[in-house]
Amino acid sequence: MAAFLMAVFFASMTDREVSALTERMVASGETIDLSSVPGVKVDKHSTGGVGDKTSLIAAPLAAAAGVVVPMISGRALGHTGGTLDKLESIPGFRTNLTVDEFRAQLAKLKLAFMGQTPQVAPADGKLYALRDSTATVESIPLIASSIMSKKLAEGMDALVLDVKVGSGAFMKRQVDARRLAQMMVGIGRRLDKRVQALITDMNQPLGFAIGNALEVMEVSQTLQNAGPTDLTRLSLELAARMIYLGKVAPTLEEARELAQKKLLDGSGYRKFKEVIAAQGGNPQVLDRFELLPNATGAREITSPRAGYISAIDAAYIGQASSMIGAGRDMKEDAIDPAVGVILEVKIGQKVDAGGVLCRLYYTNDANVEEAAQLVEDAFRISGSAPEERELILEVVG
Amino acid sequence: MAAFLMAVFFASMTDREVSALTERMVASGETIDLSSVPGVKVDKHSTGGVGDKTSLIAAPLAAAAGVVVPMISGRALGHTGGTLDKLESIPGFRTNLTVDEFRAQLAKLKLAFMGQTPQVAPADGKLYALRDSTATVESIPLIASSIMSKKLAEGMDALVLDVKVGSGAFMKRQVDARRLAQMMVGIGRRLDKRVQALITDMNQPLGFAIGNALEVMEVSQTLQNAGPTDLTRLSLELAARMIYLGKVAPTLEEARELAQKKLLDGSGYRKFKEVIAAQGGNPQVLDRFELLPNATGAREITSPRAGYISAIDAAYIGQASSMIGAGRDMKEDAIDPAVGVILEVKIGQKVDAGGVLCRLYYTNDANVEEAAQLVEDAFRISGSAPEERELILEVVG
Repeated sequence: MAAFLMAVFFASMTDREVSALTERMVASGETIDLSSVPGVKVDKHSTGGVGDKTSLIAAPLAAAAGVVVPMISGRALGHTGGTLDKLESIPGFRTNLTVDEFRAQLAKLKLAFMGQTPQVAPADGKLYALRDSTATVESIPLIASSIMSKKLAEGMDALVLDVKVGSGAFMKRQVDARRLAQMMVGIGRRLDKRVQALITDMNQPLGFAIGNALEVMEVSQTLQNAGPTDLTRLSLELAARMIYLGKVAPTLEEARELAQKKLLDGSGYRKFKEVIAAQGGNPQVLDRFELLPNATGAREITSPRAGYISAIDAAYIGQASSMIGAGRDMKEDAIDPAVGVILEVKIGQKVDAGGVLCRLYYTNDANVEEAAQLVEDAFRISGSAPEERELILEVVG
Repeated sequence: MAAFLMAVFFASMTDREVSALTERMVASGETIDLSSVPGVKVDKHSTGGVGDKTSLIAAPLAAAAGVVVPMISGRALGHTGGTLDKLESIPGFRTNLTVDEFRAQLAKLKLAFMGQTPQVAPADGKLYALRDSTATVESIPLIASSIMSKKLAEGMDALVLDVKVGSGAFMKRQVDARRLAQMMVGIGRRLDKRVQALITDMNQPLGFAIGNALEVMEVSQTLQNAGPTDLTRLSLELAARMIYLGKVAPTLEEARELAQKKLLDGSGYRKFKEVIAAQGGNPQVLDRFELLPNATGAREITSPRAGYISAIDAAYIGQASSMIGAGRDMKEDAIDPAVGVILEVKIGQKVDAGGVLCRLYYTNDANVEEAAQLVEDAFRISGSAPEERELILEVVG
């Protein structure tokens, strides 16, 4: 198997091969049967970014529009965050639902969040361990089959993928992101699932907040239409694709209008509150941020000179955030829900010498110096305004 | 390790890397210390061919000229023959010498033959098993390190390599044979051993005889200067290179003259007889072929039409010969020393319709039909004479 992984790393796989591998991975364990839940089940998956809290926005919007959204999510690892960790920063929130509870909540509220169970696609976990020890984690067909095997085992009918590309993403080059997206869409097509993928920029963090409770606060603001432009825009587009694939709207244009409507009339926001309450959390946290874990220390990072922000290395920001406790290096590490980074500027903005670039929020002094240095290094200040960059680069499928 | 082999298969290795691997393989087991034997120790190794009995000719010629030749050889596998099996067709011949016996005979006769011991480069055996099960046997750096680790562990000072290329060889393309030769010469250079490699044609069997006792007969004829031209020519060149690397002659030209002299004056022939006697065999077999195992059945393969022999697929001939018992598919298979094939024609010769192409010698009817068909398929008859082909294509090192 180790030799097989290395052969795939060098020789890649055809669409037929990667589909066959994915099917065998699905068949290695249990599958979740959601056929008793009425409606088209549409899942959403991101390949992992920094400050990427779109699942917590797009899923309530799509569910509010009538799509059934079975959200089976992962945890933070390395410099990227995890939806489960963000949700668990809400006091009382339970992600370890049983499959029966998950199904019942989906039937009732159309949206439920849970973690992956070890019974789903167990071959993936074993292969991942072997990929890790053979340095083949980065192989595109192995990434594609890993993601798709879990999604396919989880009972979805359609899937919206957000394939991140850039310094803060696993895929650094758009050509690789495209190939990954094409492979995943191809696997879906061969197995009769509707799959669309957005390729989106991860050269700077998404939104302003990085860190679990900090991101929940930003989700709340965004669901009340007071969030960052980039985060709002991407979340709406993802929700629209989910609504379209979920056949709630006949055209993508109508789906976009519906997603927008669910944002503006507050029904996405109310949906998220209902789900928080249903899963044991306190929905009040979305209005009263003091009910969320709060950091005890803060530190400003200022600009050494005046100019335009031309780059914010998302990987550096993610690493710094992880270093002070927001993420984990190893699966077993504990995380600190309160800590993280709040950006004060985004790419293209003007900054004065001594102007605040971002703030680090921490509860423990350890690593703060190092994290601050890393964050400072993440910003590049130029004399002229950088070219504007597209957020949504491509659609595949 | 499986992943490593596959990575090497796809990405190859630099000279420095393959040398480091080879050194570690040598260090995985015991090494044979021949420093007590006076003189430069020169070994000879072939990558494996069909009808390739040059070791049994070049080694006695070189030893007769004064070179110390510690011949540690292998067995037949697949369609290629093995020196040990050929020697063991001589009644009484012992190849399982102890290292002490080997050393003593080298000191006395300058030539001794023995098999590889499992204590030498044991990593090679384990790697080979893993290469076999991961389909990475054909990787050039893995072949180079396998050959060189065994040779380096066996106490040689210099090495003459015969890298076969063509339909009957492991390497089908000259560019691959060259790369293999260059890698092995490079490994030798890094470890302070003089290594030269000939790249030689294996698009037809070497000489006329294929099969163990049949080849010993042809060796005897060749050492009496009555052998096939191609076999004589290559054996003399290999002996000359051994004499030159063994510093018995100061120039290659003088080494060639010396090898020729040792052939013509019969001292190579006498040396081989001495060695046979010293290792328990009956030296009379070289004069009286009826003392060697003889086949009981023979079958002629004739030409379906008149024309020129334009190809004799050496792999087919080797397979056919192996099929009737001259070789083995699995390491554990027994072989029949008497059987094999004697060619009556070589590439470029004219043949009449119904003219004999070769004879199959067998002791057991099983597989004879199939082998005969394979042998027949090995010959290509054309209307015009083929271009003449070089036997020695290149020298590396």
